[in-house]
Amino acid sequence: MAEEQVIRDEIESQPGVWVATWRELLQSRERLSALLFSQCWDGVLFVGCGSTYYLSLAAASLHQQLTGQKTQASPSSEVALFPAGVYPDVRQMVLMVAVSRSGETTETLQAAEEHHRRGMPVLAITCDGDSRLAGLAEASFACEEAREESVPQTRSFTSMYLAAHYLSGVVADDDTYLEALEALPEHGRDVLRRSADLALNLAGQNWQRAIFLGSGPYYGLACEAMLKLKEMALAWSEAYHFPEFRHGPISLVDEQTLVVGMLSDTAAEAEQAVLEEVTRLGGQTLAIGERVAPDTAGQALSLESGLPELARGPLLLLPLQLLAYHRALEQGLDPQRPRHLRQVVVAV
Amino acid sequence: MAEEQVIRDEIESQPGVWVATWRELLQSRERLSALLFSQCWDGVLFVGCGSTYYLSLAAASLHQQLTGQKTQASPSSEVALFPAGVYPDVRQMVLMVAVSRSGETTETLQAAEEHHRRGMPVLAITCDGDSRLAGLAEASFACEEAREESVPQTRSFTSMYLAAHYLSGVVADDDTYLEALEALPEHGRDVLRRSADLALNLAGQNWQRAIFLGSGPYYGLACEAMLKLKEMALAWSEAYHFPEFRHGPISLVDEQTLVVGMLSDTAAEAEQAVLEEVTRLGGQTLAIGERVAPDTAGQALSLESGLPELARGPLLLLPLQLLAYHRALEQGLDPQRPRHLRQVVVAV
Repeated sequence: MAEEQVIRDEIESQPGVWVATWRELLQSRERLSALLFSQCWDGVLFVGCGSTYYLSLAAASLHQQLTGQKTQASPSSEVALFPAGVYPDVRQMVLMVAVSRSGETTETLQAAEEHHRRGMPVLAITCDGDSRLAGLAEASFACEEAREESVPQTRSFTSMYLAAHYLSGVVADDDTYLEALEALPEHGRDVLRRSADLALNLAGQNWQRAIFLGSGPYYGLACEAMLKLKEMALAWSEAYHFPEFRHGPISLVDEQTLVVGMLSDTAAEAEQAVLEEVTRLGGQTLAIGERVAPDTAGQALSLESGLPELARGPLLLLPLQLLAYHRALEQGLDPQRPRHLRQVVVAV
Repeated sequence: MAEEQVIRDEIESQPGVWVATWRELLQSRERLSALLFSQCWDGVLFVGCGSTYYLSLAAASLHQQLTGQKTQASPSSEVALFPAGVYPDVRQMVLMVAVSRSGETTETLQAAEEHHRRGMPVLAITCDGDSRLAGLAEASFACEEAREESVPQTRSFTSMYLAAHYLSGVVADDDTYLEALEALPEHGRDVLRRSADLALNLAGQNWQRAIFLGSGPYYGLACEAMLKLKEMALAWSEAYHFPEFRHGPISLVDEQTLVVGMLSDTAAEAEQAVLEEVTRLGGQTLAIGERVAPDTAGQALSLESGLPELARGPLLLLPLQLLAYHRALEQGLDPQRPRHLRQVVVAV
């Protein structure tokens, strides 16, 4: 049990780590702003691999919505291997935000180098300020307190994601948003406490596949929840935009299917309709959102944070990290050392 | 058996339908070009749902690589529900290419309307020239001969995808590319013939989950192959960019795992390395590519088309449609009527 506690401690330490990360972010504002405002960008490109690609999807949606800047996300490997698919012929000045926990991921280093070859700068978000990625970037932010012993990312994900929130809030010059982010640790503690039993119980229930749904800024988070369950519990897990699930994958739904919906405010009605359809077809459902009516799904978790929709992202992941953890134990697996994986994925 | 033959006939009729589609495309060149060249576009946006979203991913990568125009793909629902995540604040003139088999998909109609509200035009690719989507678009192309009785898209997908190839070739003014496309039906017949036994045998083998890998222009095709297996055979199927698979999901690999790689020319070395790693970890593998060395994977299928990498896309899908068909029969399922699905997905 001592071993399994490491990743559980990492999950539960998140609110405290966010406090430390936030303090560092405030202190680095001038340094980060120098690059963020060094010119009028034609666009912003977030890149990463695995968890940090999903972080990039979430951060790109957030960044474009908050700042209005054209923003996209790409797996680092697409930049490195298929640059013609990422860079159009028209010359544009694009800021790359490269995200890597270790700062040593081969494809992300290659993507940053490709971006440099095109004469454009890189901002790195990592957990290691001494890494190669931090070294080659024009500016970097390191969430040192978020470093982990476990292979699956939990607190490193949410802390680097918080750093992306901070960048977007600074670019948007949105003080209300930045103030809202300061309240995340307090709400994080509350959500962890209130979701503990739910996650434990759900992990023990009888389902064989889990589908995570999220749209807009939450799609990348649905992908990350999918990957957590896969890495820790080796489970059949998938992620879709809410309406996309109806275009084919819904044929999977039976009583062995658990569908978890991350409800937004913007599209709540359309999203709830998907969960209701799943319920009608006999599937199990869990809805997580700011204030979820009890009859929306089989089970419901309200965040009750009072935070804006975009700022709530880190809270949505907490119950699903716990779900993956408990499901792993339920299946007799070691949640912190997934089969075939290491902390840093380097080229073979 | 008579019933099951419908979808099999639809799969096998593809080369013939491509001939008819091509003839129509040539005749519509002037009409389509009027919109394609009506101004200097800041970007092109492909949208669709389910299969046609995956088509959009493949077509966007193809279009940007062939033409150099900034091109992206989005699920129609993201345009309809989260427009701030699709449209930046900077005013740009973007051509939407909206893809829908029926031309009646609710979210795609809503996406086209959202695009119109912003004062920008829509080009529709559909199988029904009398549909609402065709009616509201500034220009449309209908693959009438590709219409299907079955719920899962097969010949409609490849025919609408061929139409996207044609548009890109016209915009690129690339006669060599357009000539290469004319040879697709002939190669399609050859690939169908040569992959028949392989698909049948593979469908009967002992695996529980199938992972489809494709990068760059083939990623959307890997997603479509994933969806075919899911719809027809209700199987555990997933799709990833080749290197992304190493960042977490590879923990799934065991002797019950089949990994299918769609090999490109551009990144063949990196892609083969992923398949070799899967083999080392005990997984089953199938490699499909232009010329696949026999030791690249457990099984190999060479297209031997002599076509450029980008033009080969429609051929890659044929063996995997057959695989999904045979797997469905193997599992006692009706491949043309997936559970819970209808041909046209409309809002609930």
